[in-house]
Amino acid sequence: MSKDIRLELRAREELFINLEPLQRGGIVPAESRKIATSYIDGYSTCDYCLGTLHIIKKPPICDFLTEAADFLGMDMAILTHGCREAKFAVMHAITEPGQAIVVDENRHYTSYVAAERAGLKIYEVPSMGYPEFKIRPEEYASTIEKAKKENGELPALALLTHVDWTYGNLVDAEKVGKICQEYNVPFLLNTAYSSGRMPINGKRFLADFITCSGHKSWAAGAGVVGILAIRDEWKGKVLKASQKYKVKPIEILGCSARGTSALVLMASFPYVKERVKHWDEEVEKARWFSGQMESLGEIRQLGDKPHNHDLIRFETPAIDKIAQKHKRRGYFLYEELLKRKIVGIKAGKTKSFDLSTYGLTKEQLGYVIDIFKDIINKLS
Amino acid sequence: MSKDIRLELRAREELFINLEPLQRGGIVPAESRKIATSYIDGYSTCDYCLGTLHIIKKPPICDFLTEAADFLGMDMAILTHGCREAKFAVMHAITEPGQAIVVDENRHYTSYVAAERAGLKIYEVPSMGYPEFKIRPEEYASTIEKAKKENGELPALALLTHVDWTYGNLVDAEKVGKICQEYNVPFLLNTAYSSGRMPINGKRFLADFITCSGHKSWAAGAGVVGILAIRDEWKGKVLKASQKYKVKPIEILGCSARGTSALVLMASFPYVKERVKHWDEEVEKARWFSGQMESLGEIRQLGDKPHNHDLIRFETPAIDKIAQKHKRRGYFLYEELLKRKIVGIKAGKTKSFDLSTYGLTKEQLGYVIDIFKDIINKLS
Repeated sequence: MSKDIRLELRAREELFINLEPLQRGGIVPAESRKIATSYIDGYSTCDYCLGTLHIIKKPPICDFLTEAADFLGMDMAILTHGCREAKFAVMHAITEPGQAIVVDENRHYTSYVAAERAGLKIYEVPSMGYPEFKIRPEEYASTIEKAKKENGELPALALLTHVDWTYGNLVDAEKVGKICQEYNVPFLLNTAYSSGRMPINGKRFLADFITCSGHKSWAAGAGVVGILAIRDEWKGKVLKASQKYKVKPIEILGCSARGTSALVLMASFPYVKERVKHWDEEVEKARWFSGQMESLGEIRQLGDKPHNHDLIRFETPAIDKIAQKHKRRGYFLYEELLKRKIVGIKAGKTKSFDLSTYGLTKEQLGYVIDIFKDIINKLS
Repeated sequence: MSKDIRLELRAREELFINLEPLQRGGIVPAESRKIATSYIDGYSTCDYCLGTLHIIKKPPICDFLTEAADFLGMDMAILTHGCREAKFAVMHAITEPGQAIVVDENRHYTSYVAAERAGLKIYEVPSMGYPEFKIRPEEYASTIEKAKKENGELPALALLTHVDWTYGNLVDAEKVGKICQEYNVPFLLNTAYSSGRMPINGKRFLADFITCSGHKSWAAGAGVVGILAIRDEWKGKVLKASQKYKVKPIEILGCSARGTSALVLMASFPYVKERVKHWDEEVEKARWFSGQMESLGEIRQLGDKPHNHDLIRFETPAIDKIAQKHKRRGYFLYEELLKRKIVGIKAGKTKSFDLSTYGLTKEQLGYVIDIFKDIINKLS
């Protein structure tokens, strides 16, 4: 009954233009790949362990996290397995089951699942719906009020998805931060799709907690790895140590990401610090691409307009009409693109789909536009 | 204020004999390194996502986990970030804060910290103390009784560390399993240092849950990755899905290890299945090494005797006497070994230390013995 689980080697980056929004911000530069290869011997973070992962000096995890906190405009930072684990760590540390949490409707599913796991009552700040699906910061006030009224106390936490995964909408975090400060509700900003791509300033946002995704947006897509950045005042609660093991923070079960994924995150950091300076160029490219796609006809960009991020969702009747009549139905698009060495749009999606333009050149994006034009002209 | 966080390349495996017990069972074979290198493009597990990590067919995660469950004598398995996360997931899923848990005194610190995080009252099965530090399975009965008496109910979980990290003692899991079954207390077996090295049969052990460490013992030391194997009857509780996202298990926040670490675990599995067949040879080597070390004089092996595992702790007055007079004090041993290309014994340890003989040849171990002999003769 033994199955063949042989794995094929993979050269996706080398052979394809990859538009997958999950992947573009995590692409590992060559220098970090070299580090990764050399550190694939396990526990490479732990040879000179000082008892606590985030204070280790060799490799320079402590220095990296100090720099990363500074880069985020926060007081301190620790490693986590990812954003979801960072969000749950905060929820588990500072809330009690039965308390309320306020989140935006565009939140990642893991914000919801983490809140469920922490036993919290979830109050959603509604989006404005079709076609822009905007989250209005001022709605945080009314949702906090609602939660307070129904629970007899303020929500224990408010969470904002800085840039959401569905529409790539950028929300004004500073406004939300101010509202949270007025109500004295701790404010968690999930920057899975923002920090590492664009400049972030937690101080200006009045954020108590910032969660980051190494594999999504810090050019560290080797394994999974995240960062939890906090204000000093939360250190006691969020980094609370075991009663017995005084150096082991309970909420990360002592230590989190050790080995390659952490090393790749560190190795890519100089590259990330540089690339966020060029965020404007990325936005310009995304807007240009969006305009080009719309000009093909019967394609409409959803979300913020003009768009402020490389993650873009299109509503695509032009594509869907072809799917209705094509013998491969909804799979035709995936297959046509694959033939032209373009991947990353989910197979079967033709009514609408999302993609990312991050880090692709204008020439590459022009090629993608040409291919879409060609497919539509040929098959309509 | 920007610090230099440049990382050195690393060739520890190629240049040294590494005795570090954390690392020996995780060493990544060349074939898996090749896979790792090719999959360092992030989310390589997610191109053909079916909503739930453990059912993904391409790469063959589902087939791998089916095989892995079978290999462990369990009904099903999922990926986790590691053993600690697997242990906490079970505790959080099946217990309530304030309930009791029974653990062995030799448990890893993360078993304790996970229980603290889950708000459990911890009852320890005492070890027999110096020099063997044995855990007697029959003590589980009296500790369960004690917990029951003090809490007015049976403990919600019993945890046994199959092989502990301090002495490398192997406990008779079947006996503990039988006691747990008699009391109707769910039984979690932590196999961080056993599965992947030696054959395991969860069915025979009457285990409800088995936790495994990919980076410690499944030749998957790239990132961190674990396996949680369970009996079918626990599926509803431990893999309970989100109310809103019916395919997302709450206790792993939807998905856990994605990317390189999972791929390396899968790539190394054929190698691991083969190597466990040769466990007897590893035990024989460990015993031989232990005897050779003791024959140097004033060195005593602690823990099970004869020893049943490659993780071995020695009490070393012979070394400590040198440290007392040496100008480098306790660091002399580390430095002397390093000069001879031997690493993995923690710097500063001279009263006692642990090491692992796993996967080293008898020639390599003979060289280590010769070096110890040489150091002692030269410096005593």
